[in-house]
Amino acid sequence: MSFIETIEDGFGAYSRGEVIVPPVGELTFTDPPGDTHIKYGYAREDDFYVIKIASGFYENPKHGLPSNSGLMLVFSKNTGELLSILLDEGYLTDVRTAVAGQIAAKYLAPAEVDGIGIFGTGIQAKMQVQYLKEITPCRDLIAWGRSENSRQQYKETMTGLGFNVTTTDDPAEVTAHCNLLVTATPSESPLIKMDMIRPGTHITAMGSDSPNKQELDEKILGQCDLVVADSISQCLERGEISKAIKAGIITSDTLTELGQIINGSAPGRTSEELITVADLTGVAVQDIKISDAVYRELITK
Amino acid sequence: MSFIETIEDGFGAYSRGEVIVPPVGELTFTDPPGDTHIKYGYAREDDFYVIKIASGFYENPKHGLPSNSGLMLVFSKNTGELLSILLDEGYLTDVRTAVAGQIAAKYLAPAEVDGIGIFGTGIQAKMQVQYLKEITPCRDLIAWGRSENSRQQYKETMTGLGFNVTTTDDPAEVTAHCNLLVTATPSESPLIKMDMIRPGTHITAMGSDSPNKQELDEKILGQCDLVVADSISQCLERGEISKAIKAGIITSDTLTELGQIINGSAPGRTSEELITVADLTGVAVQDIKISDAVYRELITK
Repeated sequence: MSFIETIEDGFGAYSRGEVIVPPVGELTFTDPPGDTHIKYGYAREDDFYVIKIASGFYENPKHGLPSNSGLMLVFSKNTGELLSILLDEGYLTDVRTAVAGQIAAKYLAPAEVDGIGIFGTGIQAKMQVQYLKEITPCRDLIAWGRSENSRQQYKETMTGLGFNVTTTDDPAEVTAHCNLLVTATPSESPLIKMDMIRPGTHITAMGSDSPNKQELDEKILGQCDLVVADSISQCLERGEISKAIKAGIITSDTLTELGQIINGSAPGRTSEELITVADLTGVAVQDIKISDAVYRELITK
Repeated sequence: MSFIETIEDGFGAYSRGEVIVPPVGELTFTDPPGDTHIKYGYAREDDFYVIKIASGFYENPKHGLPSNSGLMLVFSKNTGELLSILLDEGYLTDVRTAVAGQIAAKYLAPAEVDGIGIFGTGIQAKMQVQYLKEITPCRDLIAWGRSENSRQQYKETMTGLGFNVTTTDDPAEVTAHCNLLVTATPSESPLIKMDMIRPGTHITAMGSDSPNKQELDEKILGQCDLVVADSISQCLERGEISKAIKAGIITSDTLTELGQIINGSAPGRTSEELITVADLTGVAVQDIKISDAVYRELITK
């Protein structure tokens, strides 16, 4: 089973209530700024549970270190014994995050993508787009980034991966030319407003995973046609949806969960004119399923 | 610095608000029964943060495995990098838990202990008593256990450690002859009632660390003279205190925190006639401080 199938199955099981996922554990740091998330849980049908630790320290690149790091721990659900430590330094989190973006686009992107617009130039800005290659034949990419240097570096990488890349520091240039948008920044103030978005656009907002981060103006969530959460309960606490809920712009009963669309119990994109938003905060079920896949592969070798 | 000094300092700092400790992460399992706790946080003055994972699966001994397991992870607070994995299989949790009992007895036990009474026959029933050797010269020990086999095994171990051991399956026999009691069971119903307790007794209740566990009748907490929590915020959610609060028997403003007594900002035992209770649920600051001590020792070798 490929990662996309495994994680799609996981989101489906999660939305059917078959996966136990307690609230995210969180530590935040100010000097230097950083955060660490602990995501954990288990699928009722599995023999193990998973605890995933992932950190983001955004000044690390100044010291030649990657911003993100982490590891995944697999334990027996029958005895509590530690079965495996996956010392992936955050790689599996990067993969499962990119795969969630892939799944969101699979169910929500317009049939004809005329441009992929990416906000951010970091590792997820690269991987999200790379993983979209399996979903759409579109190779026209416009990337927004704050610094000339990071835009240039991003352009080189993505050109090497087969994209026709334009870069800009103007968000409106991205939204004007693309109908599949991915936001992949640690921004704490909105990058996109409603009047910048073309009809028929899908936005996957995946950068905001903490209560303080925000990439979309919260009015977008009230005015677009469909708001999809990777986890409704988690998105009430963090991510774009939490901002719109707290501002009184939307209520939780208007939300659809990604797994419901996968399970066929809720509609996804029903018309080419719709504006859809998927808010991905990263759910432990992704960590559980990717650890499962890797651990099984390891022990059968 | 010894572990008792390190952890005493930790409790003191915690009660002064100098240690960040989010709510405990928890997974519970039913088939077979078990639980896993994630305790984590950092001292503001330190350069690292600690995530501790500890599990209890109480049917493990049937399969020749210890009930408890766990590990501690030390990360840089400046970069999020993993610095050390202490694969202690729960040993450091056992030590820091026994040390907390030692500290509670140091501040709250009567000056003349005429008998140590222990409830339980597991690893903590052994370690709690072993660690009391530094606090009191009393070597008369009465142990309560459910099974003849475990009582016999316990008696052998503790006799070897220099105690005069009597065992019983009657809780009242323990409370009648001892004025320093430690409860160290995973019991889900009370073992001790108020009318069984002699004046001048101190009880350290350390077995109950989950919302479902209880060792003391909740009325004891309303009728005794002093109730001490290792962490007031944590004891509102779990342990003996949470039961008494939920039953409306006590309110949180009657509670004293162990670190306050250590800091001298609240009185401990002020008279030999008092009945005192310390409710120990296990606080991340203990894990942080013991990891700190072990990690420093490792890197300076």
